[in-house]
Amino acid sequence: MIRTRVVISDNFPAFSGLGSEFLIVADAKLRRHAELLSWMAKLRRSSVVVVYWVAAGEKLKDISSYPSHVLKIQKLLGSDFGRSMRVVCVGGGSVGDFAGFFASTYKRGVGFIQMPSTLLAALDSAHGGKNGLNVGGAKNQVGTIYQPSHVFVVKKLFIGLDPERWIEAYGELYKIAWLSGGSLWVQINRMKNLDLKSFWPLLSPAIRGKYKIVQKDPLESSGHRHLLNLGHTLGHVFESYFQLPHGLAVLAGMDFAFFFSAQKSYLKVPRAEIFAQPSSLILSTALAKSRFRRVNFPALLTIPPRDLVRLLAQDKKRVKGSNIRFIFPVKPGKCRIENVSMKELLQEFARQRHFFMKI
Amino acid sequence: MIRTRVVISDNFPAFSGLGSEFLIVADAKLRRHAELLSWMAKLRRSSVVVVYWVAAGEKLKDISSYPSHVLKIQKLLGSDFGRSMRVVCVGGGSVGDFAGFFASTYKRGVGFIQMPSTLLAALDSAHGGKNGLNVGGAKNQVGTIYQPSHVFVVKKLFIGLDPERWIEAYGELYKIAWLSGGSLWVQINRMKNLDLKSFWPLLSPAIRGKYKIVQKDPLESSGHRHLLNLGHTLGHVFESYFQLPHGLAVLAGMDFAFFFSAQKSYLKVPRAEIFAQPSSLILSTALAKSRFRRVNFPALLTIPPRDLVRLLAQDKKRVKGSNIRFIFPVKPGKCRIENVSMKELLQEFARQRHFFMKI
Repeated sequence: MIRTRVVISDNFPAFSGLGSEFLIVADAKLRRHAELLSWMAKLRRSSVVVVYWVAAGEKLKDISSYPSHVLKIQKLLGSDFGRSMRVVCVGGGSVGDFAGFFASTYKRGVGFIQMPSTLLAALDSAHGGKNGLNVGGAKNQVGTIYQPSHVFVVKKLFIGLDPERWIEAYGELYKIAWLSGGSLWVQINRMKNLDLKSFWPLLSPAIRGKYKIVQKDPLESSGHRHLLNLGHTLGHVFESYFQLPHGLAVLAGMDFAFFFSAQKSYLKVPRAEIFAQPSSLILSTALAKSRFRRVNFPALLTIPPRDLVRLLAQDKKRVKGSNIRFIFPVKPGKCRIENVSMKELLQEFARQRHFFMKI
Repeated sequence: MIRTRVVISDNFPAFSGLGSEFLIVADAKLRRHAELLSWMAKLRRSSVVVVYWVAAGEKLKDISSYPSHVLKIQKLLGSDFGRSMRVVCVGGGSVGDFAGFFASTYKRGVGFIQMPSTLLAALDSAHGGKNGLNVGGAKNQVGTIYQPSHVFVVKKLFIGLDPERWIEAYGELYKIAWLSGGSLWVQINRMKNLDLKSFWPLLSPAIRGKYKIVQKDPLESSGHRHLLNLGHTLGHVFESYFQLPHGLAVLAGMDFAFFFSAQKSYLKVPRAEIFAQPSSLILSTALAKSRFRRVNFPALLTIPPRDLVRLLAQDKKRVKGSNIRFIFPVKPGKCRIENVSMKELLQEFARQRHFFMKI
């Protein structure tokens, strides 16, 4: 049973009743965020607060540099901090991975609070408790599943975000909207723009949608949580090969899944109904304005088979032998999970490439 | 609910039904243990087995060297190992700490089996799931609580152990016998020798005693598990200051606790009944024959107050402010847990030193 409390608000939280010892692990990009700094100053009046600024990114997640971070933090904490301390993460996915792993293993586990500063984190990575460090370039090979006690989603942290971040977050929002179905799916297809104003009202139902899935499988043991990998099998391949942002790669991975599902007659919705939604048009407009204007689905299908096999084989969704767990979209609110052989996946990839070459 | 299965047997286990991918983390001191090697060879016939030999000791537990171990293991495992793999630890406390932490965090947690090769591990550290790495000399600052699925206590691993190891294990056996009370307390006081033959029959009830306590507080959250720290407050001080083996230091720590408890009129058993047990005589005989022949309780009370304060302050049993959680023995099977101020502890230490100087 996950008991994380999610609080979505315009302003920074008061932290009353949350203890008196806080280690704030924060993205150094926020070092000049005036409102964040004044919140920290306010917190200092009633609590012992240590702030550890980190440079976000994959380097932070490298296990090789982990011990030196722990040594530095241990020095900063001194002897003032006991097991009742709480780690507060102010950052995006990589900072959350680092801080979550730290919280789950420091003194055999201390309190953990997430305060996401990227939309993707607010929507996805701050929830569900997964964290991970990289080992020699292989992603998330070391980690735990450790639920935060609270996730504070503070609007003030998202003002003035890079427009590219909206495109990225849209990928995960679209995925969770499909998985949830119902009114969230209707709402996302009525979105008019990719901006904070359009996005903000969808955040709460999207987060609820994620918890509904995670709640049924907190430790990723029953398999239900695998649904969240919709679009991620090919998504991770596109992300690695073309260095795409995660959310954009997942969107393309979902397109692949839609076509694959239609081909197998699993998809119960006409393809036109998916790809002609107004949301697709907003996205293309946003993409056209971004540095990814040349990214289109057919262009992604040019990966040579040898690289495709290598990248698919690295996937953690790999099950016994060369089979890969694949999430097929059926209709909004419904997917089916099936093991697919590497051979079938390669054939389907070739089929889609061939199909798009003809258009 | 802890579901660890403990199997005590003369021979090595068959591992049937335990999967087909094993990473064995083993103490390099056992590299020539013929029966262990032939068991490994047998296991290889039906499973994929990778053996990672480690040098046991505190250096293995240093977080600074942890990433290089993970990189080496990742290389050894190649792509053959999935999340269904199991880590098998063949070693004592430090190997168990390393292997347990690895198992709990590799791929967000894989299977874990303990096969203790020291008596102290068989009796104590292999059970209960605690593991820990050291950070810049501070012990167990990073770790998790992660239960092994199985603990196999194999008699063949204990034949020919260094006699000093018996003294060490006796400390934890004595502690758990007091905490359990009942027949185990009677049995330990009837022990004739410190050897495998006398020790072996007590192992099973002692392990049951530990699980009975851990079961009530698996994550060390309710406080019940603190009982296992009986004798450890001063024990850790003696261990650090005089470089004593852990078990011997805990025995001395228990003596301190007995005198302290009597002084506060908590102890419901005449002191003579505790210190004149035949088991105390066996112990003194064993000690006299070991390199610790000069270690006696009064000699340990010579620590200067300044060092005493420093060592006590490092203790994880420290609670709010300068208070320390202390376990007072009341009678076999019963203790009371109470917060004691640093001042009171120093006074009691001085009182005991003064008392023994007069004898």
